[in-house]
Amino acid sequence: MPTKDNVLKYLKESDGFVSGEELSVKLNVSRTAVWKSIESLRSAGYKIDSVTNRGYKLGFSPDRYSEEEIKFGLETDFIAKDIYCFDSIDSTNNEAKRSALRGAPNGSLFVAEQQTGGKGRLGRSFSSPGGVSLYFSILLRPEDAAVNVGSLTLIAGLAVCEAIRGYTGLNAVIKWPNDVVIGSRKVCGILTEMSAEVERIEFLVVGIGVNVNNTEFAKELEAKATSLYLESGEKFRRIGLLKEILKKFEVFLKSTAAGNMEFLGEYKKYCVSLGRRVSFTREGKQFTGTAVNISPKGELIVKLDGGGLVTVFSGEVCVQGIYGQ
Amino acid sequence: MPTKDNVLKYLKESDGFVSGEELSVKLNVSRTAVWKSIESLRSAGYKIDSVTNRGYKLGFSPDRYSEEEIKFGLETDFIAKDIYCFDSIDSTNNEAKRSALRGAPNGSLFVAEQQTGGKGRLGRSFSSPGGVSLYFSILLRPEDAAVNVGSLTLIAGLAVCEAIRGYTGLNAVIKWPNDVVIGSRKVCGILTEMSAEVERIEFLVVGIGVNVNNTEFAKELEAKATSLYLESGEKFRRIGLLKEILKKFEVFLKSTAAGNMEFLGEYKKYCVSLGRRVSFTREGKQFTGTAVNISPKGELIVKLDGGGLVTVFSGEVCVQGIYGQ
Repeated sequence: MPTKDNVLKYLKESDGFVSGEELSVKLNVSRTAVWKSIESLRSAGYKIDSVTNRGYKLGFSPDRYSEEEIKFGLETDFIAKDIYCFDSIDSTNNEAKRSALRGAPNGSLFVAEQQTGGKGRLGRSFSSPGGVSLYFSILLRPEDAAVNVGSLTLIAGLAVCEAIRGYTGLNAVIKWPNDVVIGSRKVCGILTEMSAEVERIEFLVVGIGVNVNNTEFAKELEAKATSLYLESGEKFRRIGLLKEILKKFEVFLKSTAAGNMEFLGEYKKYCVSLGRRVSFTREGKQFTGTAVNISPKGELIVKLDGGGLVTVFSGEVCVQGIYGQ
Repeated sequence: MPTKDNVLKYLKESDGFVSGEELSVKLNVSRTAVWKSIESLRSAGYKIDSVTNRGYKLGFSPDRYSEEEIKFGLETDFIAKDIYCFDSIDSTNNEAKRSALRGAPNGSLFVAEQQTGGKGRLGRSFSSPGGVSLYFSILLRPEDAAVNVGSLTLIAGLAVCEAIRGYTGLNAVIKWPNDVVIGSRKVCGILTEMSAEVERIEFLVVGIGVNVNNTEFAKELEAKATSLYLESGEKFRRIGLLKEILKKFEVFLKSTAAGNMEFLGEYKKYCVSLGRRVSFTREGKQFTGTAVNISPKGELIVKLDGGGLVTVFSGEVCVQGIYGQ
């Protein structure tokens, strides 16, 4: 870690003032290096009090991504052991894939302040303004740690849903398979990608975008999108929410590794699609019915208006009352 | 194209001597630039005669990869429209994947003289010495041109098998699904990889490695590997073979785009696995039997010794008499 990060870590773990000399001795660097680190942290938005004869004290930490900030108090085992932070990147999923090709390990985390080419599902673009939303991707290597691919998209949605509930008190729910919704508007989108041979998955990338402190959306998104701020009137620290999501995601990853689908009970509790009227298209034909259950494999089971049950594996399902439908 | 490539193209297309002045005028460059290009081509191994008052004449072209050499006389439509040549690269599949993330178009070709981290199936390494073998990868984007993913691995093998037969006269056959074999030894390996969302393939990379002029193999490979040279006593131009493979591969790609499996008849004709005794492992259990057919989906159908037919989708199948089994 750079000296700056070590200084920050020391200040965070200290109660009260720490002298420049103590920092210099404990971190084995010069007084000048300590002073430069303090100035660098201040210019990055950290509020650090300094009092003659007493030293430095950390006041306020900005909501800016850094390895040190994310690791501080993070309750995970293998997720985010390696952290890559960017001010701006085309897409955290793309960066995760590039890093994977260079050998980045299982659990690597990629976070960006802003995405210049954010991606949604099916090659769509995903609006990614800087400074307000949370964009990150997690790299998974099924060969290094078992991953149940079938449940992956569902547990990613469930982790975000529960983290938002716990962190903000907002009543987040899930639109199958993994949009996270508050009221009737989307607050989080997830894009799962993989690199594979015909019979072997080399790596998976789970990309998550949460609208945290957005104050507005483009006209065409207004009926469909919302943010934690717009729903609660409060601004939230993205790093805090990120750590909650990572913790929950890892718990679900581990519990489902051997194909255990016990999380489905929890998932169904929050799945807003169930019991609602839905419509979807299959082979060019439009179907309508009522979503009645989630199968043990995570598929949506729909009772068609014309009678009969049908299993929906993937794709677009419109849910009445959600996204202005 | 650099001036050098334009000069080469002009010389290749000309019958007899071409004056420096003609080159200068037709290519709209200085006489000095023409002379520098000739020198540069000579140092790259081209034999170019020059006679006072008559000009330049191309004698021999080396078997070195360049965009110009590969494009000259290439009979494809979209395959190899974009060509990337490397003296040395970790793996042409990896380079194809990196380029795909940067937006390389459908059909892009990646060729390397040498691979420092050549990859085989299931994460195995693939020995890739320089100067003797042919290593290349083709990038396919199913959204830009229909690709029948189910038949992709089979037609890649079939294209190589038929190209070797036509180009060398050697009696190449296919070990299901797509090893190309001469006698009982492997002469070509194919690794197909993909990058995908849960319900949409972003791109596919087909990597092909052919042992062309190898004069020897490591001890542990001797019983399993051979080269076109070892089988025929002749050295072959890799670029010529490459162009044959590309041509055939594109023909099969187009004919199978809409799911047409008519190529299967041709495939079965060359498939050495059929009619032989085979063994494979499934869920930890060993099975033996006789390969009796290829299903319309391209799977191997095996009549088990204990009775009954079983369909093998993928994975390792040992074939009696091949690779020392």
